[in-house]
Amino acid sequence: MSKFWSKTVKELTPYKPGEQIQAKNLIKLNTNESPYGPSPMALEAIRSASDDALRLYPPPNSDLLKASIAQTYQVQANQVFVGNGSDEVLAHIFLGLFKQAHPILFPDITYTFYPVYCSLYEIAYQQIPLNQDFHIQIDDYLAIPNNGGIIFPNPNAPTGLITPLSEIRRLLEVNTQSVVVIDEAYVDFGCESSVQLVNQYPNLIVTHSFSKSRALAGLRVGYAIANADLIEGLERVKNSFNSYPLGRLAQAGATAAVLDTEHLNATIQKIQHTRQQLIADLSSLGFNTLASEANFVFTTHATLQAEFIYAELRKRDILIRYFNLPRINNYLRITVGTDAECAQLIVALKEILN
Amino acid sequence: MSKFWSKTVKELTPYKPGEQIQAKNLIKLNTNESPYGPSPMALEAIRSASDDALRLYPPPNSDLLKASIAQTYQVQANQVFVGNGSDEVLAHIFLGLFKQAHPILFPDITYTFYPVYCSLYEIAYQQIPLNQDFHIQIDDYLAIPNNGGIIFPNPNAPTGLITPLSEIRRLLEVNTQSVVVIDEAYVDFGCESSVQLVNQYPNLIVTHSFSKSRALAGLRVGYAIANADLIEGLERVKNSFNSYPLGRLAQAGATAAVLDTEHLNATIQKIQHTRQQLIADLSSLGFNTLASEANFVFTTHATLQAEFIYAELRKRDILIRYFNLPRINNYLRITVGTDAECAQLIVALKEILN
Repeated sequence: MSKFWSKTVKELTPYKPGEQIQAKNLIKLNTNESPYGPSPMALEAIRSASDDALRLYPPPNSDLLKASIAQTYQVQANQVFVGNGSDEVLAHIFLGLFKQAHPILFPDITYTFYPVYCSLYEIAYQQIPLNQDFHIQIDDYLAIPNNGGIIFPNPNAPTGLITPLSEIRRLLEVNTQSVVVIDEAYVDFGCESSVQLVNQYPNLIVTHSFSKSRALAGLRVGYAIANADLIEGLERVKNSFNSYPLGRLAQAGATAAVLDTEHLNATIQKIQHTRQQLIADLSSLGFNTLASEANFVFTTHATLQAEFIYAELRKRDILIRYFNLPRINNYLRITVGTDAECAQLIVALKEILN
Repeated sequence: MSKFWSKTVKELTPYKPGEQIQAKNLIKLNTNESPYGPSPMALEAIRSASDDALRLYPPPNSDLLKASIAQTYQVQANQVFVGNGSDEVLAHIFLGLFKQAHPILFPDITYTFYPVYCSLYEIAYQQIPLNQDFHIQIDDYLAIPNNGGIIFPNPNAPTGLITPLSEIRRLLEVNTQSVVVIDEAYVDFGCESSVQLVNQYPNLIVTHSFSKSRALAGLRVGYAIANADLIEGLERVKNSFNSYPLGRLAQAGATAAVLDTEHLNATIQKIQHTRQQLIADLSSLGFNTLASEANFVFTTHATLQAEFIYAELRKRDILIRYFNLPRINNYLRITVGTDAECAQLIVALKEILN
């Protein structure tokens, strides 16, 4: 603690991401990356842009990338906001739209970065408990009409459970006075997107990531889709923070990646197939796994403690995620890897259970 | 203006960067990019990293890059902070170190992003006038001991004038109770760096950019060097905003670039040589140019209005920067391009003056 830190810094408890260990032979199932590479078209676009032109600033408004995203989701380019990963997009949303008179609302079990943004920008929040089955109950949110905003992931993390589009629509029909953010980082793996609702509800923002289904976590690109007025608010924050958040290579790679629907669909199909097998295999070992629509599963064992299993897997160079948090401290989050990686995980779990 | 915007957004006046026009045959002397390409080693490192590994998150703490910067400047790795361009580094400094009880101080003529950060984070500030010759007067800052921090570029922008290291030392000897930031985006072109002072003054932060002398504006990397305690404060802000601000390609390119001192020195020499010629040529046309130690010059003409010259050059596809601001609205900022670009500029100016 330094006397030169601002009060904000002194009171922060920063977010802790999953470990990024560089060791060889590690089976890395802890940060929900894709086990398959990005679109070859994205890699080619990056290679083409890796030249002397890097001496020049990138287009500050990422116009080509926004146009490609708009085309993909059939919205207007001024309905698209892009940022340096969806974490940056979320940060700007918190400062630009969630800093309000009333507390914002999000689930008690969800992406643990949300309360960190609140502490960074001094935003009051109220956590709404998931029900006993770990589902989001829309009525609990509707019960607090004086809120400064609502945010939850769909599917939720780390549960992997979805909130049906009909329920999100029901929320938006009633909650019209504050912004609703649906964080769709994992939407492509089996959940219906709320993007189709943005033209009906001027207070809806949907955020997406290139780090999961598009397999470009190393490039750092995320985006939001909403009514043009909300996007303009985010642009004002962005242009008061960093004129050029996306470099030339990030813009080139993401522009190509978002247009490669074929590669996206092939990736999703492989992951869905492996996920089904993984859940079945875990079940045969005495695990109870939630009905995930994400590229990870959230699971608990009938007899063995989650923390013990996590530690034992680590000894065997298999990295998964364990959250020592209320209600979920006997659960494990496991990224859906390749078939081979998941098979090795099952072998290791058998060993630990014996 | 939307009812959903936060008060912060409603009151913002975002920063406006120089135009990034993509047209061919344009002579682009408006945003102080290097006319020469980046280090070939940086390009090679980027190409090597442009592969399937992009599916994985980058190292969140950019350890290799920090080690390379630390080695270059002979400091410890925990004295180095890195960000998505020096604009992001500055933004985190404003929130993390400048949000204090007293107003911060910066020159009236300087980088116009500083007041924008203040408005984003609700930080009070006081602008200290440059003297008649556009120099920073350290005594004016020492006259306000109750300040929340001090920031100025060295060399200053858009003047290109330097504040001698002895004067910065004099400031630091007396101003010990608030953070002093020396923004050295342009330092490599002829100014002595204050990095050598960071181990003596625990309240000093020096910020640098890869966008100017390193010719990597399109990659988006900046850094700060300071006492480890100040760096830790910035890390707390960064880890509450975005765990992974630098992608794999940015880390790879910048790590290689910072070690290529030979390429840096060759670039600097060429630009210094061209700058000298440009100032002489401008002088022969009736311009009065400040003694720039940056990769741009700041100049005014004896008879013709700056705004007129700017507009006439634009018609001829030569882009320079004009700021319609008090005290400098008869000045032009011109990036030092290649010899050929500067020669074409002089030809065009002769035409305009005739």
